[in-house]
Amino acid sequence: MTMQLYCFGESGNSYKAALTMTLAGVEWEPVYVDFFKGATRSGEYRDLNVMGEAPVLVDGDFTLSQSGAIQEYIIEQTGKLGGADKREHLEVLRWMFWDNHKLSSQAGMTRFLMNFLPEDKRPQQVIEFTQARLKSAYATLDTALAGRDWLVGDAISAADTACCGYLYYPEPFGFTRKDWPNIDVWLDRIAEQPGWKHPYDMMPGSPADRA
Amino acid sequence: MTMQLYCFGESGNSYKAALTMTLAGVEWEPVYVDFFKGATRSGEYRDLNVMGEAPVLVDGDFTLSQSGAIQEYIIEQTGKLGGADKREHLEVLRWMFWDNHKLSSQAGMTRFLMNFLPEDKRPQQVIEFTQARLKSAYATLDTALAGRDWLVGDAISAADTACCGYLYYPEPFGFTRKDWPNIDVWLDRIAEQPGWKHPYDMMPGSPADRA
Repeated sequence: MTMQLYCFGESGNSYKAALTMTLAGVEWEPVYVDFFKGATRSGEYRDLNVMGEAPVLVDGDFTLSQSGAIQEYIIEQTGKLGGADKREHLEVLRWMFWDNHKLSSQAGMTRFLMNFLPEDKRPQQVIEFTQARLKSAYATLDTALAGRDWLVGDAISAADTACCGYLYYPEPFGFTRKDWPNIDVWLDRIAEQPGWKHPYDMMPGSPADRA
Repeated sequence: MTMQLYCFGESGNSYKAALTMTLAGVEWEPVYVDFFKGATRSGEYRDLNVMGEAPVLVDGDFTLSQSGAIQEYIIEQTGKLGGADKREHLEVLRWMFWDNHKLSSQAGMTRFLMNFLPEDKRPQQVIEFTQARLKSAYATLDTALAGRDWLVGDAISAADTACCGYLYYPEPFGFTRKDWPNIDVWLDRIAEQPGWKHPYDMMPGSPADRA
C-alpha cells in the first residue's frame, strides 16, 4: 500500500521524511498541507497531529508524526539507511537528534523569519542570535564530515537525510555553501543519489506558487 | 560494568539521560563536566564529542552523545522505558524528537540566557520570542497529557523522561507549573518513581556551587 505523507515544499522537516522514503525505495504520495493558509492550526489537523506540525505519515491504520520518528519507521520497514549495525544505528540516531536540537530547528525558524514574514515583522535580534548559533552548528557538521563521504559509516543514512533537510533551499538564512567546503561536497554527494530531488520538486508547494 | 555519564547538574539534557538510566535500573556514575569554565569547548572534550556538548555516555569501549541516542541505548540494553511494543516505541521516539525540536532545546537556551548570562548581556527580544514559542510547546504537552498518566501507553517511558528534562529547575525561564495543570500533576507523578531525584541532587554541579 502506498504511504501518504502530509507535507509541503517549504518544510525541510517534511523533506527529511520524503527524501528518506524516496532513497529507501518506499512508495509514497504527498498530501498537500497548506501551511501558509493556517492548515496546521485547524482543529481537524490537530486531531491528526496534536503537535500541529508537518510532516505526518499515514501508512494504512498507522499514523506517525515527527520527521525523526518517521525516518526510524522507514529504517525499520525497509532495513535501509539505518547504519550497518546496532552501533551505527545509534550513531545515526545521534545525528538525527543533533539535527533536531541544533540544526534544522534553528535553520527552519531563521529561514521562516527572514523570508516568510513581512519585512516589518522580522525580529532582527532573534535572526542575528540564531544565525550565530547556526554558525556553530555548520562548523560542527563541517568538521564531522572532514575526510568522510557520509556522517556515519561508509554509506548514506538517515543521519545525512536529516542534517541536509534545510540546506538545499534557495532562500537566504545565513547559510552559504562555499563557506563550508565539506558540507558543500556532501550536499552534492547526496544529490547524486538515484531518485534525489530538490524539496520544491519532491513535494507540492513552493514560494513560487504564492508569488 | 558501571557506565559513566559526562554531565553537570544545570544540564537538562544530561538529566534526561541520567534519569532514564536511573529509572531503568542501570548502574552509572557521573563524570563532572565543568561547563561554566568552558570544559565542553576544550580540544580534549571535542575529541570525546565533536558536538561539544553534554551528556556523553561511556560504556566500556562504546561512547555515545546526544541525550536522545543515549536514552535509546538504555532502552535497548534494558528493555525498559521504550513502550510496550514497536508502535509504542515509535511514539516514544516521536515525543523524544519533539522534545529536542520544540521543548528542551528552547527551554534550556532561554533558562541559560535569563539566569546564567550577566544581566547586561541578556538579549531581551530573543528571550521574549522564545518564551512565546515555548508557550505553544507547553500547550501541546499539556493537551497531550489530558486524561493520561503518561505520554505514551500506560507506563512511564523515555518520552516522559525526555520532556520533563528542564521542567524541575527552579531558575525562572517563563514556565510556571500551575499554568499547566496536566503537566503539573505529571511532573509529580514522575517524581514519585522509585529512585527519582531532582537534577541538582542526581548530578554534580549547581548554581549554588558557583555562588
